[in-house]
Amino acid sequence: MKIALLGYGTVGSGVVEVINSNKESIEKRAGKAIDIKYVLDLREFPGEAINELIVHDFSTILEDDEIEIVAEAMGGVEPAYTFAKSSLLKGKSYVTSNKELVALHGAELLEIARKNKVNFLFEASVGGGIPIIRPLNQSLTADEIYEITGILNGTTNFILTKMKNEGRSFESVLKEAQELGYAEKNPAADVEGYDACRKIAILASLAFGEHVSFEDIPTEGITQISSEDMIYAEKMNYVIKLLATCQKQDGSVFARVSPMMISKEHPLAMVNDVFNAIFVKGNVIGDVMFYGKGAGKLPTASAVVADIVDAAKHSGTNIITFWSREKIDLKDKDEVKVSYFIRVQDEDGLAENKVKEAFKEIQPVEALSREYAFITEVMTEGEFAKRLGKLSDLTIMSKVRTEK
Amino acid sequence: MKIALLGYGTVGSGVVEVINSNKESIEKRAGKAIDIKYVLDLREFPGEAINELIVHDFSTILEDDEIEIVAEAMGGVEPAYTFAKSSLLKGKSYVTSNKELVALHGAELLEIARKNKVNFLFEASVGGGIPIIRPLNQSLTADEIYEITGILNGTTNFILTKMKNEGRSFESVLKEAQELGYAEKNPAADVEGYDACRKIAILASLAFGEHVSFEDIPTEGITQISSEDMIYAEKMNYVIKLLATCQKQDGSVFARVSPMMISKEHPLAMVNDVFNAIFVKGNVIGDVMFYGKGAGKLPTASAVVADIVDAAKHSGTNIITFWSREKIDLKDKDEVKVSYFIRVQDEDGLAENKVKEAFKEIQPVEALSREYAFITEVMTEGEFAKRLGKLSDLTIMSKVRTEK
Repeated sequence: MKIALLGYGTVGSGVVEVINSNKESIEKRAGKAIDIKYVLDLREFPGEAINELIVHDFSTILEDDEIEIVAEAMGGVEPAYTFAKSSLLKGKSYVTSNKELVALHGAELLEIARKNKVNFLFEASVGGGIPIIRPLNQSLTADEIYEITGILNGTTNFILTKMKNEGRSFESVLKEAQELGYAEKNPAADVEGYDACRKIAILASLAFGEHVSFEDIPTEGITQISSEDMIYAEKMNYVIKLLATCQKQDGSVFARVSPMMISKEHPLAMVNDVFNAIFVKGNVIGDVMFYGKGAGKLPTASAVVADIVDAAKHSGTNIITFWSREKIDLKDKDEVKVSYFIRVQDEDGLAENKVKEAFKEIQPVEALSREYAFITEVMTEGEFAKRLGKLSDLTIMSKVRTEK
Repeated sequence: MKIALLGYGTVGSGVVEVINSNKESIEKRAGKAIDIKYVLDLREFPGEAINELIVHDFSTILEDDEIEIVAEAMGGVEPAYTFAKSSLLKGKSYVTSNKELVALHGAELLEIARKNKVNFLFEASVGGGIPIIRPLNQSLTADEIYEITGILNGTTNFILTKMKNEGRSFESVLKEAQELGYAEKNPAADVEGYDACRKIAILASLAFGEHVSFEDIPTEGITQISSEDMIYAEKMNYVIKLLATCQKQDGSVFARVSPMMISKEHPLAMVNDVFNAIFVKGNVIGDVMFYGKGAGKLPTASAVVADIVDAAKHSGTNIITFWSREKIDLKDKDEVKVSYFIRVQDEDGLAENKVKEAFKEIQPVEALSREYAFITEVMTEGEFAKRLGKLSDLTIMSKVRTEK
């Protein structure tokens, strides 16, 4: 079986490395030999063996009927979308690690694949090497999934873990992460939660069978989390994690990406450093969790290659995936119930009274000096915003959603 | 699609409940209606709806060509083995939660299924509802798996968690577990590690592609673990878990079931109560972990029904599973490297010298009164036994393998 690889960057070169190093076991599992015939990249790699396979024009791949699987590791919506669509229409399976592409066009590309009896597979787009897409599609089929909550971004988890363990500020740890190559020069996609947002949109669409648009998901990153927040969390036996969640309650779906304080007893609390984990709740199976490296050259390549194997095994048949183009209207975010941890400045000791006027029931937290801190009762986001408005003459130093 | 269910006990009745309660989503995923036509049980259930489906004679099911899938939730090698073999030979897929059957006859039954273009599926036999068999077969296909280590028995994990948290003895917690119905009247299968042993034999066979016989796996239960051991573990920042492991090193495979002290930082350390978790190491993906309820009516039924869905989707095609009848000769257990935590009685303060004579390098541990405690360096089990023999005039109060 001849395949083509689009993009010879970090993940792409990892795919070549994995196919070469585990050749025997991979071909045994695929049931046939897997040969990379072309690698599409803008660059040349003179002196490297890969250079013989390099092509610069996608049409070479598209027009070659020998190519049955196109594996893409480029990222970005275009030209990936054009490549994906034309590959599937030509009867080639398309395997991708590209979360932007999948979050935006997954439903459509799955439909084209189904009509053309080929496969559109994207295990690597969420959770790097962690098997989650295939288990959702093929293992948790007896269940109605009503919640998925995950730590879906390794960079932010690395930053939060370091802030917690070393008492350092967000800015200082971000700088170190950039120096180590764990964070991009422009870190917005990670630290503002955009990456996690696309990933939870994909998982939500698969869990509920209809399209969840990432643009509809309220998304908050970790840039406002301070080392003081970490101190409070520790005192309360909480940890702060950037959680992406989607939940179905009484027929309505809501989704959100935001930092959360969760109990140290929660299985997601022990997920540290660049690890990711995805917690799934089903009405029959109860709680299951999938844990592993959510990024990195080889873990991501492992998922791409597993999809190539699956596509090879299913040559000529479509693996049914439920993700219709019907769009889910997410629940109004103001109606979602939530509880917050709040810190306010308190130079004069008067904050407590003001807080108690605004919020009826609060759970006070032992505060740092010149501060007043508390946890609100559970209320809707809308109600919370209204009550918080009443504190307009206080300086709000933090507000972080808490598990309750 | 008509199916038959063998056994209407806890798991069997769970299967009926799941198929009824999630009917719509299950049939959507299976691509066809799934009807239970027969339920084989020795008993009658007068007044219950299920009674209409009850049959007492397996041949009714075997001879009915309408039945395409037989789902078994009886347990025990016979008559399950006879039922499985004859079903597969008749061209019916066989789905089972029966670890004894799978551990003993898995390789043969998979071969018969392959020859007859049907499927032998057993997701529910390991880890209850946790998806692990299908991910091993279909998701981790790019990797060479070199280690699987798991907490595979919920009863012993419940007992160890209670012993740790409440400072109680094994006997007292076991009694409570029996009263709660978490442990059997005859608890040997759980507390002696036999259940975990069969499960790791299944996982090892799938990971390495050849048959690992459970009878070859050195197996030790938790009956010797004392509340004092828990106190020492806590002091050293360890927890004690019953771990089942299989590992491949330099081409040779070893497997073992035994209590282990592992660091509190290890992802398996936070797996408490009746939860199970399976930690897999691959040469590409790195570490991944699967976590969930390892037993119980509905989680186990969830896995059985997911297999029924898979069998329905793959009607007429065999899902290739690598588990050949070729048997793996496990590494001699005396050659496996290990480190132990040891406690000896020390009434006269002379133990330290004797210990240091027998074991060269030790790491002493702050001991309870009238005891001497230490961790050995890493050595083979054979070497350890020899050195321990030199302490024959001391009373050994505990020996527990430790992560190092």
